[in-house]
Amino acid sequence: MFTISQLQDIISEKFSTLNFDKKPQRLYEPIEYTLASGGKRIRPALVLAACNMFSEKIETAIPAALAFEVFHNFTLLHDDIMDNSPVRRNKETVHKKWNKNIAILSGDAMMIQAYEFLSELPSELLKKILPLFNKTALEVCEGQQYDMDFEKCDNVSEEKYLNMIKLKTSVLIAAALKTGAIIGGASEKNADLLYDFGINIGLAFQIQDDLLDTYADTSVFGKKIGNDILTGKKTFLLINALQKSGIKEFDKLRNLIKNKKIEDDEKIKSVIQIYDDFNIKSLTENRIKKYHKKALQSLNLVSCENNKKQISAEFADMIMNRKK
Amino acid sequence: MFTISQLQDIISEKFSTLNFDKKPQRLYEPIEYTLASGGKRIRPALVLAACNMFSEKIETAIPAALAFEVFHNFTLLHDDIMDNSPVRRNKETVHKKWNKNIAILSGDAMMIQAYEFLSELPSELLKKILPLFNKTALEVCEGQQYDMDFEKCDNVSEEKYLNMIKLKTSVLIAAALKTGAIIGGASEKNADLLYDFGINIGLAFQIQDDLLDTYADTSVFGKKIGNDILTGKKTFLLINALQKSGIKEFDKLRNLIKNKKIEDDEKIKSVIQIYDDFNIKSLTENRIKKYHKKALQSLNLVSCENNKKQISAEFADMIMNRKK
Repeated sequence: MFTISQLQDIISEKFSTLNFDKKPQRLYEPIEYTLASGGKRIRPALVLAACNMFSEKIETAIPAALAFEVFHNFTLLHDDIMDNSPVRRNKETVHKKWNKNIAILSGDAMMIQAYEFLSELPSELLKKILPLFNKTALEVCEGQQYDMDFEKCDNVSEEKYLNMIKLKTSVLIAAALKTGAIIGGASEKNADLLYDFGINIGLAFQIQDDLLDTYADTSVFGKKIGNDILTGKKTFLLINALQKSGIKEFDKLRNLIKNKKIEDDEKIKSVIQIYDDFNIKSLTENRIKKYHKKALQSLNLVSCENNKKQISAEFADMIMNRKK
Repeated sequence: MFTISQLQDIISEKFSTLNFDKKPQRLYEPIEYTLASGGKRIRPALVLAACNMFSEKIETAIPAALAFEVFHNFTLLHDDIMDNSPVRRNKETVHKKWNKNIAILSGDAMMIQAYEFLSELPSELLKKILPLFNKTALEVCEGQQYDMDFEKCDNVSEEKYLNMIKLKTSVLIAAALKTGAIIGGASEKNADLLYDFGINIGLAFQIQDDLLDTYADTSVFGKKIGNDILTGKKTFLLINALQKSGIKEFDKLRNLIKNKKIEDDEKIKSVIQIYDDFNIKSLTENRIKKYHKKALQSLNLVSCENNKKQISAEFADMIMNRKK
């Protein structure tokens, strides 16, 4: 039996043995910089956890676990260019530290590196997993495109929003679990149940992200709240507030979000006041609980030793209870 | 027996049946736009030609052929962002027609699409070809990085230049041939000979590119000559001229290339005068002949029916004799 942190350690140790001291330096240095900046190694840990539900030989799943982590980091690298984000994990983003061209190309090389890890799988597993990985990778791109499209869109429906976060976040978590399960020798049914578990956990995770940005306890959160409000991001909170508001209030909220003359703190306070009027906080918390519950229902149906499900359940709880 | 143009037609027909009418539109439209803009379909034709040297069943090689073509087009799409090129194949580039973010993301999706085609290969072939494809893809990124590095570098050696064009151009042509050969059931030796053939053909192709940009017959070339001189590109011609010049002439040529005050036509004329003084044209032509000869030597050693080698030989001749 493993704990989440033991699995995360296995991954971190593997990453520390990789050699990126290769030429041309300006291609490989940004890859090393990105992968060394850590992150929670959640996706690769889930690959290993899911594999371990059905097999004791988790070593076979390590290349796939690394592939998921490298792919995830590649998406962050390219997303940061597109979103013009200056900071990631408390460090300068690659396109700021080097430049955009370096970030595009080293990102491309990272994606190839992800496929290089996958290619280490035994041929029969590779043949099963590569199509799932490709489908998922393409969906992640679709999610990012929808996210960019929504920036220019005044009224995004909850349904479209949920589809976007499913593509942008959930499918990679779900595919990580399914991949681990397949490598562990799970039946198709069990692998699909874990995929569903991942989809719902991903939704809960992303909505929790939206919630924390507005309602986190600032003493634990580690950064200022209200950033989403200031950038006018279409979050679960904003979309629901807009949906609940009448014509008059709809315009008031929309104009408030767009108003660039108002002071930051005042804008945040006013928007939160509207959210509070519509009970957005508890509505959002309930939705997170709903997806968490759905996730656990899928997990319960997986046929494997019950204690092997513990890590995934813990992971789900971690998402529910996280404060930052 | 096929001709090059028959193989190109097979590929074009396959591409015309692909459906990119998918959502989000702003992700898939640029992919369709890029793939529909044609190009000579050289790499996929070589995959099929190499397969056909050892097998009559070229259908098995079609997914790999498409993968190479889509990957090649992905590199053009991202290179055009990095080089800020406004036009490709007489059409606006994706980052100009849409924007940079769209170009980054649809490029990413194209790379994934290339891997999706590869995933259609039977498992044993996939296990052999995926590592070759990954290695090659990474080398192409390395080549692009060296190319960008050279822009900021005053003195690039011929050796470094040849390594750069090998990575940026030759390895993909070589890997396309080797992939086709593997799918056709070639021995390792035959597959490697075709790889070597591709490397040398690629070098000849790229150096011919440099030659034409300065010395093409303008009535056939279709665009103005001298663009490389005006952009100060480190071409085979410039590198050799700099290498042949004494200290005084070296500075003269370098300053001439860097001089932004001089009229375009005068600059081109003056640089060509220096090239002529050093016999750069015939030196370059001889080098192209040398690589062409080396390529044919490898091709001759391949054991298969002689008439099956004809397409590859024709392809090599096409490069030697192209005027644009």
